Amino acid sequence: MLCVPNSSPLANRLGFEVPVTSSDEVTEKMEKEENINHGDDVLDIENEGSFDGNGEEIGRYWSQFSERNMTYEEPLLVKRINTTSQIAIVGSNLCPIESLDYEIFDSETFNQDWRSRKKVQIFQYVLLKWVFALLIGLGTGLVGLFNNVAVENIAGFKLLLTTNLMSKHRYFEAFLVYAGLNMSLAAAAAALCAFIAPSAAGSGIPEVKAYLNGIDAHSILAPSTLFVKIVGSIFGVSAGFVVGKEGPMVHTGACIASILGQGGSRKYGLSWSWLRYFKNDRDRRDMITCGAAAGVAAAFRSPVGGVLFALEEAASWWRSALLWRSFFTTAVVAIVLRGGIQFCSTGKCGLFGEGGLILYDVSSAKVTYNGGDILAVIVLATIAGILGSIYNFLVDKVVRSYSIINEKGPFFKIGLAITVSLLTSCCYYFLPWIANCLPCPTEGALTCPSIDESGEYKIFQCPPGYYNDLASLFLNTNDDAIRNLFSPKINKEFHISSLFIFFAAVYFLGIITYGIAVPSGLFIPVILAGAAYGRVISRLFEPITKLDRGLFSLLGAASFLGGTMRMTVSICVILLELTNDLLLLPLVMLALLISKSVADIFNKGVYDQILKIKGLPYLEAHAEPYMRNIATRDVVSGPLMSFSGIETVGNILHVLNTTGHNGFPVIDEPPFTDSRELCGLVLRSYLLVLLKAKNFTRERVFANASILENISVLDFGKAGSGKGVKLEDLDIKEEDLDMYVDLHPITNTSPYTVVETMSLAKAAIIFRQQGLRHMCVVPKSQERPPIVGILTRHDFMPEHVLGLYPDIKHRKWH
Amino acid sequence: MLCVPNSSPLANRLGFEVPVTSSDEVTEKMEKEENINHGDDVLDIENEGSFDGNGEEIGRYWSQFSERNMTYEEPLLVKRINTTSQIAIVGSNLCPIESLDYEIFDSETFNQDWRSRKKVQIFQYVLLKWVFALLIGLGTGLVGLFNNVAVENIAGFKLLLTTNLMSKHRYFEAFLVYAGLNMSLAAAAAALCAFIAPSAAGSGIPEVKAYLNGIDAHSILAPSTLFVKIVGSIFGVSAGFVVGKEGPMVHTGACIASILGQGGSRKYGLSWSWLRYFKNDRDRRDMITCGAAAGVAAAFRSPVGGVLFALEEAASWWRSALLWRSFFTTAVVAIVLRGGIQFCSTGKCGLFGEGGLILYDVSSAKVTYNGGDILAVIVLATIAGILGSIYNFLVDKVVRSYSIINEKGPFFKIGLAITVSLLTSCCYYFLPWIANCLPCPTEGALTCPSIDESGEYKIFQCPPGYYNDLASLFLNTNDDAIRNLFSPKINKEFHISSLFIFFAAVYFLGIITYGIAVPSGLFIPVILAGAAYGRVISRLFEPITKLDRGLFSLLGAASFLGGTMRMTVSICVILLELTNDLLLLPLVMLALLISKSVADIFNKGVYDQILKIKGLPYLEAHAEPYMRNIATRDVVSGPLMSFSGIETVGNILHVLNTTGHNGFPVIDEPPFTDSRELCGLVLRSYLLVLLKAKNFTRERVFANASILENISVLDFGKAGSGKGVKLEDLDIKEEDLDMYVDLHPITNTSPYTVVETMSLAKAAIIFRQQGLRHMCVVPKSQERPPIVGILTRHDFMPEHVLGLYPDIKHRKWH
Repeated sequence: MLCVPNSSPLANRLGFEVPVTSSDEVTEKMEKEENINHGDDVLDIENEGSFDGNGEEIGRYWSQFSERNMTYEEPLLVKRINTTSQIAIVGSNLCPIESLDYEIFDSETFNQDWRSRKKVQIFQYVLLKWVFALLIGLGTGLVGLFNNVAVENIAGFKLLLTTNLMSKHRYFEAFLVYAGLNMSLAAAAAALCAFIAPSAAGSGIPEVKAYLNGIDAHSILAPSTLFVKIVGSIFGVSAGFVVGKEGPMVHTGACIASILGQGGSRKYGLSWSWLRYFKNDRDRRDMITCGAAAGVAAAFRSPVGGVLFALEEAASWWRSALLWRSFFTTAVVAIVLRGGIQFCSTGKCGLFGEGGLILYDVSSAKVTYNGGDILAVIVLATIAGILGSIYNFLVDKVVRSYSIINEKGPFFKIGLAITVSLLTSCCYYFLPWIANCLPCPTEGALTCPSIDESGEYKIFQCPPGYYNDLASLFLNTNDDAIRNLFSPKINKEFHISSLFIFFAAVYFLGIITYGIAVPSGLFIPVILAGAAYGRVISRLFEPITKLDRGLFSLLGAASFLGGTMRMTVSICVILLELTNDLLLLPLVMLALLISKSVADIFNKGVYDQILKIKGLPYLEAHAEPYMRNIATRDVVSGPLMSFSGIETVGNILHVLNTTGHNGFPVIDEPPFTDSRELCGLVLRSYLLVLLKAKNFTRERVFANASILENISVLDFGKAGSGKGVKLEDLDIKEEDLDMYVDLHPITNTSPYTVVETMSLAKAAIIFRQQGLRHMCVVPKSQERPPIVGILTRHDFMPEHVLGLYPDIKHRKWH
Repeated sequence: MLCVPNSSPLANRLGFEVPVTSSDEVTEKMEKEENINHGDDVLDIENEGSFDGNGEEIGRYWSQFSERNMTYEEPLLVKRINTTSQIAIVGSNLCPIESLDYEIFDSETFNQDWRSRKKVQIFQYVLLKWVFALLIGLGTGLVGLFNNVAVENIAGFKLLLTTNLMSKHRYFEAFLVYAGLNMSLAAAAAALCAFIAPSAAGSGIPEVKAYLNGIDAHSILAPSTLFVKIVGSIFGVSAGFVVGKEGPMVHTGACIASILGQGGSRKYGLSWSWLRYFKNDRDRRDMITCGAAAGVAAAFRSPVGGVLFALEEAASWWRSALLWRSFFTTAVVAIVLRGGIQFCSTGKCGLFGEGGLILYDVSSAKVTYNGGDILAVIVLATIAGILGSIYNFLVDKVVRSYSIINEKGPFFKIGLAITVSLLTSCCYYFLPWIANCLPCPTEGALTCPSIDESGEYKIFQCPPGYYNDLASLFLNTNDDAIRNLFSPKINKEFHISSLFIFFAAVYFLGIITYGIAVPSGLFIPVILAGAAYGRVISRLFEPITKLDRGLFSLLGAASFLGGTMRMTVSICVILLELTNDLLLLPLVMLALLISKSVADIFNKGVYDQILKIKGLPYLEAHAEPYMRNIATRDVVSGPLMSFSGIETVGNILHVLNTTGHNGFPVIDEPPFTDSRELCGLVLRSYLLVLLKAKNFTRERVFANASILENISVLDFGKAGSGKGVKLEDLDIKEEDLDMYVDLHPITNTSPYTVVETMSLAKAAIIFRQQGLRHMCVVPKSQERPPIVGILTRHDFMPEHVLGLYPDIKHRKWH
């Protein structure tokens, strides 16, 4: 009975007298707070066997192990070494993986522990969580407001210059100004991305999704990324790219949450000591979920939609407490935005008008529908589903091609961005010349033609009294273009050919723009293309439907979103909150459901595709079907590195030096126990902290209280990026190598285990649902060592399993 | 290597040649589809040891076991026998518990299996799921429509009679008619509940919640319950009780889903063979989740709110596929309701007007607010939180008292309902006499005074040109009263004393009404009380706030809902959909968050309380803090009943006869293996099916193909209520008792396991998240039997753990 469970009374009875905190509390703390070593450039993904941290052959070390009396187990089955790494894909990142060992570091534990030592009441900890939620909401709301004001001013200024020159008929100069400004802004955005924070490029939603799945990609939530994401997004959107600020807002919200959770960043002198209590994966994950929700709420002014987005798309783990904390965060965002708009309505925000924060008014559209209308919606959604899956397919190809260019260096990145910008400017400026000038409508309060930087009826090259319908779409900000398309007031003012040209241009520009080194959201391109598509379809179905064109535009946007992003409830709610009309709900739902179902036949959602391109080892919610036919022992890789309960310093150092493993099983042996038995799991980071403290003993005996003498429980807390104890920091002398150290105080005695005959699919589900990093495989019979191996995220990846068993046909069912 | 994992090739190599389907498919099927034995009146809850199925002492059988060479293990720790059963509480039910062994019966398995045998394409199975969702939506929508039309007509007729008599100044006669009709309706509702389906009483939401947690309480989703729920709810609401039809609608939706999922009910001749493919817990659970969502959608015309309700309150397990299937269901409901209302708007539904399906129009209220308004909302929500928790406390007391009366017999139930009805009638009829007659407002299009069955300005006893404000609230249907309170048009027409009297009356009547044997929802009483309370507060805060009174009423309702039900996002969205104004969102969120936080300090949500009163062993999402200090081996109860891989028929029969266990570990022993090893888990229902087939062998040998000869895989499917093979159905002859039967083909070789030192809290989380019924505890060392015990739901109940270790202080942190 050496290895006691998390039961303090028992532990004390057995002599585990630890001064400040009992051993089990430390252990619980440990398991939760895994060190990630952000700063390391080693491949930190768990792979117990085929491949070690330094990329050298594992075989070389085997002989060393036997010399040093190291315990290791033979792999159970002799099988092919897996040569296909899931990392060997374009654009792969080095991703330390986080663990979310859920219950063990439950806030209650933390509270009790904290309270007993720090005399801080529980409600202060709870209050702190709410304060964080408030801060995340405030921060994201303010950034969202700033972003909108900046974009409206920069883009407005650019458009004003262009239209001014055009009104003087200096068309070529106007183009030069327009394209020049666009290219400068594009170059600035790309330069920021290329030189300061390469991980700020793209949407950011896949990265946030990966983080919430447990993959902490390099510097994805760093302060530099936050800065580039905000500024780069403003430049990128102002540059007239077919990109949105919505995806970047989600990433921004997540960054704000992460930086708050880390207690600021020491590197930039932004550090608050009282914010450092959340140094564990679970609280940080919760905060980043709230941040993602706040981002959507700020982007769309959609508080409920934000929460649902976090639930449906972003989060891999969810608990009910999170539902209402994220809800609170998004409510704060909504209030901040509301306050900001009230402030700006007095005209203090420059060119920022009503247009900045999209809120489309379709409420004047009459919503009654019959069979013909529903038929039209079904056709609309079906085609949108097909177009959406083609969109995903093309985005996939384009991103893969671009990443080859982007990898050549920062200047290639900037060059690519400028090229795309020039192409976009040409399309936007020259395509409206195709359109005919239309006479202004006689009734209606809208100014026509408008020569302003925005407006529904742009004069462009037309004579007074006429307007260019295509210019009204192209030479506006994306938000204004969407508003024009959604508006029920403009019913017949777009010619079908103009709409089709606009649709085609936006569809393909959207595809070729994503993948350049600029923060670029996908929502707005898809909504734009969908809205134009909806109006085209409404024209085609004129004989059978009397539905409002603006409404069709909305339905087109909904079905395009369904076809690319494959979300349902959150898109539906976001669109409802954008348009403020609940009576549209059944039609929007119908369109979304059909387009998603149709698109799902062909490929995956766009974010899942990008995750795959980036090589992030994302754990799917469902295990692959063939995993049901494989037992855990058949995939677990060897050799297993395990420690004895009381181990020599030399052995520990050697193993830490020669492997990249992050978790090691601890096995108690006679004479301390009757037979060899599994004590638990110890983490690399805790071993490092323990070794650094240098409380070693000459004899192989149990540790006394002194072992944790100069270690505080907070030392085991999750360190910020690259802040944890590193192997190089240790200063172990030659004579220490043969001394002993008792690992029991830092061993987690409640590791998650599965029996070796457990099906891999079931193990994968537990692994994901519990948010684990290590899972121990135990034998089913008595005459075997107490542990068979350790499963990590790597072992569940289809690439790994298919590498081991290439005969298994990878069949897929939707 | 006797006991192979779910790996068909291996199984085949070892001679597991099963003709139609391979052994692992059977096994997977098995684990999923646990038989529940609804019809049995035995206590079917798992309790391995202290207490057996027939209530006799386990000790008597121990001696018999040793005679029959039965394998059993000694309990690990000698400890107090747990004498506190969580069932020994007022109103307890006999609850078979369902399992949701998630991945094992993944739809893919089923598909492959099904397809290979039935040549049915996968998309048909998927299509079937959607057809079910459609049917559930259609059914629930139509029932919701019918319910509303019936209530409006019955209650309208009653009120019309009363007001007619009153207009002739025959006040006493009017009261007699009013109270008499109320009492008759109440008696009818109570009689239905008492004699036909006692489980239809109450809200039904706790029962649905319990079912989705894995507790299949007796006949809670039976066709008789459905019938009584619909008719009883109509009578109950028409009887003028302070009850809603919303909770019962949720239960109705769940019942419809369950009956559809079972393929109809053979008992009532409603059976469709093609609907029988969903005979497993997972698909049925999914459908009932959709049904609950559809119920809320039908009750409130709130499709998104319905989905969120199912997610936030009802479901214990959630997966993303469910999100959009339930969304589709609620969309269907919304379309059905819309169609129904369009149909009824032509006047074909009798007295059913706009009023039936609540959709409150508050959109004319101007929503701008300042600091004073927010302060008022904070105070409003804080007091509402306190009042909400008092409400819950009193409901708890009242329900416990009533259950003593109700247990005495059906006539006591009816008597209690009539008493409460009389009390309600007296309050409703006589309280308005206290109010003064107010002069009709001069402007405004509303008829004043109204002598109709509904209307904002009831004349009651007043002279022409005057109206009674209190009667406008009391002598209306609950829906109309809420509409009057929410309406922004009626701004000053309610006197504060009238509002206070109405609030007090509804608050206390709501409390004393819940618990009578009538289908009774809690939403409407709480919304009514909250709306009146909101108007009272708005009067008190007149000096500092200029917010609209109707808006205050809405905020009052929101904060009362938050204070009693403790939901946040779903209530918020339901209220938004009810009122169709998204601009109210930030204030509603604020009110909800504050009232929930305040109320959470004092007690639990009302549905959780009712779950506890009913004695349903609900597994909470979070384990109790003290469970972290207990290892699984410390709670697992003995003696463990296990079978050998090839077991004698006599032993199996004996164990099935003498225990109530539903799962038994199967252990392989020499000479078939090198040492004793855990093969897996076998279920009682599969043993019964196997024994019924009577394919026994004289020798102790592995089974050949013949063992599954006259058994179809569908026999292992989940049987409907009381339809499975029972012990009494078996016809085993004396000479068969010494014959052998091979259990391997029906053993699930992938049972969920934990090591004995695992903390109970972590095991509880896995148990709940995976939806398990049995969890095997394996030893951590080598020299022990391969299984230590089996954990069931019972072992995680706080009552059980605290019974074993009464010294653990049950400390609670919120």
